[in-house]
Amino acid sequence: MLSEFDLIKQYFARPAAARAQADARIGLGIGDDCALLNPSPGMQMAISSDMLVSGRHFFPDADPTMLGHKCLAVNLSDLAAMGAKPLAFTLALSLPEAKAEWLQPFSAGLLALADQHNCTLIGGDTTKGPLNICITIFGEIPPGQALRRDAAQVGDDIWVSGTLGDARLALAGYWKEHPELLRMDEAQHRQAALRMHRPTPRIELGIALRGIAHAALDISDGLMGDLGHILERSGVGACLDVDALPAGPILGTQIQDIRRRYTLAGGDDYEICFTAPAAKRAEVLAAGAASNTAVTRIGSIEAGSAVRLVDAGGQPVELQLQSFDHFTSA
Amino acid sequence: MLSEFDLIKQYFARPAAARAQADARIGLGIGDDCALLNPSPGMQMAISSDMLVSGRHFFPDADPTMLGHKCLAVNLSDLAAMGAKPLAFTLALSLPEAKAEWLQPFSAGLLALADQHNCTLIGGDTTKGPLNICITIFGEIPPGQALRRDAAQVGDDIWVSGTLGDARLALAGYWKEHPELLRMDEAQHRQAALRMHRPTPRIELGIALRGIAHAALDISDGLMGDLGHILERSGVGACLDVDALPAGPILGTQIQDIRRRYTLAGGDDYEICFTAPAAKRAEVLAAGAASNTAVTRIGSIEAGSAVRLVDAGGQPVELQLQSFDHFTSA
Repeated sequence: MLSEFDLIKQYFARPAAARAQADARIGLGIGDDCALLNPSPGMQMAISSDMLVSGRHFFPDADPTMLGHKCLAVNLSDLAAMGAKPLAFTLALSLPEAKAEWLQPFSAGLLALADQHNCTLIGGDTTKGPLNICITIFGEIPPGQALRRDAAQVGDDIWVSGTLGDARLALAGYWKEHPELLRMDEAQHRQAALRMHRPTPRIELGIALRGIAHAALDISDGLMGDLGHILERSGVGACLDVDALPAGPILGTQIQDIRRRYTLAGGDDYEICFTAPAAKRAEVLAAGAASNTAVTRIGSIEAGSAVRLVDAGGQPVELQLQSFDHFTSA
Repeated sequence: MLSEFDLIKQYFARPAAARAQADARIGLGIGDDCALLNPSPGMQMAISSDMLVSGRHFFPDADPTMLGHKCLAVNLSDLAAMGAKPLAFTLALSLPEAKAEWLQPFSAGLLALADQHNCTLIGGDTTKGPLNICITIFGEIPPGQALRRDAAQVGDDIWVSGTLGDARLALAGYWKEHPELLRMDEAQHRQAALRMHRPTPRIELGIALRGIAHAALDISDGLMGDLGHILERSGVGACLDVDALPAGPILGTQIQDIRRRYTLAGGDDYEICFTAPAAKRAEVLAAGAASNTAVTRIGSIEAGSAVRLVDAGGQPVELQLQSFDHFTSA
């Protein structure tokens, strides 16, 4: 059995130590009581924590490479939703046992995504216990430019990045939910499942939207529920065109009711939902193009506090939806 | 059952929001995708993460007020060992269920210690799962003044703050280890147990030792094992006077063998072990007095890589000790 220190050295320490020397913002990496960061002068630091629990946020037998990717991706997604540029992260890991067959691919998936975003692993903790992965991530953003939840204004367009619902569709496949309604072969299920297991954090889009978007957040628990946080914080309502919602490629082949439900309340999408003035449509599209990320206009911010759902013809749509909450859902 | 958002609002959000307004370094507290910090110009940021798992780091039925205190105390202790001043922290919490009877006292214990050190809760995560508490803490320190593990020098004195071993003695009481050797009534056990459940982070001492101490770390897994990290990083050895080790008041009433073992390899002490030049003894004592923290000289740094144990008469002492490792121990 590997000791805690051997485990850190073998799987996590070397890349960080090497990269710490290359980045003047990293004063000290893994191995002391604290890591030391040198914040860039005049920048704000954006900080987020996400904890992923086995059996709740991922299957106990999840592919460790993809799991390593996903754990960091969901944290990067929080930086993206703020418009922040990644800097570094800490990893706290509770493991039933320190097995190389798991640690090697997990760290490989994690550090590959970290390298892609120049985000250095600077420290953390390892302990024995039920599998639990907690990452705290640090990014930088010029003061006043963060895309906050409380900044939506009446008249704003509502936009979403990428596509929605394929992750939820993959889950339905795993759970064998309403097989009488789903049309999905094994290859399609595998493709949809990639959206669930390997989400793409929209870092470049978030940075490109600085100074253009008003409010933003990332969609982790489903569009409707997450948009609700922007509305509540901003004291506004919204109208969503359910037929404008960009369904994932596999979800796009499903019947209308499934398509609407999974785009509106799917969960695990890790796309960015944001609002921007109607006068800035061209700039939003340019930000999408510059960051190689599809952006779709899906509705508008209204006075009030409700969300109205309409179809492509502007007619009201009635849907009973359940968003995901970590304590009230099963 | 409380929802995730109600839970955060009710128990954790208000004090932080109020304090965020009072501290210009807190740009944005709980409730968005990220928190925003405004690092003080010219300061380094010290960052540490600790994950505490039920049944491993605390008893499943641990008093929640003391547990809230301890979870933050062990993180503050990492800042103390670096000489950093507390600024803020994030809390990620996995809970089997969101019960007010637990959350209320847990948050009270946590936030009382946070207030005492002006350390603001700025964000985090809550989820359902096996009880797991992960805190990431942020402090500030002037560049170049951090007390690192790799800075011990041959000829340095070795010092320790406070007293050692009462936490380990309390654990022996709970576990009913060698009852034929321990002398401890219930009142004494309760007193020793306070050291285990309510450790005191030595923040003021750590700050007072800037510019005086060379190397430092906090003792969480036992003096011998933790001092070993300083020795390995610094490429030095040490001589410890086992009779100079400051035993906790209850441990001080035990037989010599227990006293030596629990001071040397107790664990859960959360005292600071540090090295300082012999020429600075008066300054170390003054730093202890200024921070109202006992400091005791327990040995010296030598060339080599071994730890020699000697008694008060300078004679070698032979002891087989086991330090605590989260993966190799039971």
